[in-house]
Amino acid sequence: MREILQSIVDGTPGAKGAVLMGFDGIAVDQALAEGAEADIESMAMEFSFRFIELKQAAESLEMGELTDICIKAVHGTFLVRVITEEFFVALLLEHPGHFGKGRWMLRSTANALRDTL
Amino acid sequence: MREILQSIVDGTPGAKGAVLMGFDGIAVDQALAEGAEADIESMAMEFSFRFIELKQAAESLEMGELTDICIKAVHGTFLVRVITEEFFVALLLEHPGHFGKGRWMLRSTANALRDTL
Repeated sequence: MREILQSIVDGTPGAKGAVLMGFDGIAVDQALAEGAEADIESMAMEFSFRFIELKQAAESLEMGELTDICIKAVHGTFLVRVITEEFFVALLLEHPGHFGKGRWMLRSTANALRDTL
Repeated sequence: MREILQSIVDGTPGAKGAVLMGFDGIAVDQALAEGAEADIESMAMEFSFRFIELKQAAESLEMGELTDICIKAVHGTFLVRVITEEFFVALLLEHPGHFGKGRWMLRSTANALRDTL
């Protein structure tokens, strides 16, 4: 699991870290970019409770199951891929320029991460 | 304002509608694609309260001001661009394939929409 998370981080230019977490805010495992000091666990935890609400809102609006969330702010972009009903993987990017690559890395590793749960 | 919203919808293949709304959930104006029956106002309203929380979370995490949110579910994708401290514009896509075009439309019209407020 750690290797998959590390491959997501290493494969996405500008990525600071990735974390696999439950929607309850409890991290399963994480990987950081070399030299990065981001507390990605706290960040993902802070958002995880909001993600549950977005998930419930999407379902109540008949949009079906939530698959991806992204949150872009001036100093960072958070990309989230829902892995199972209970878990998601989140990737923190310093620059939004590699948004597409990050999204692709999350998508292409989702099945492998699911298999580790 | 209506014309700008309509140009976003008409310029994005697969778009169902766009709405300019306050974070308090009150819509300013909206535009629908021809033949679309989506209640985009109710959908955006349902999410708007969650957006305030995401905004506050991003700021408390020192990510700076929130600029974009996207929420992708099985049957629809919601793209959001923050226009001012109080207002956002949301675009509902039926298919995620035109995500990039939708995001570009929101970004390129943001200043013009801001000027109408």
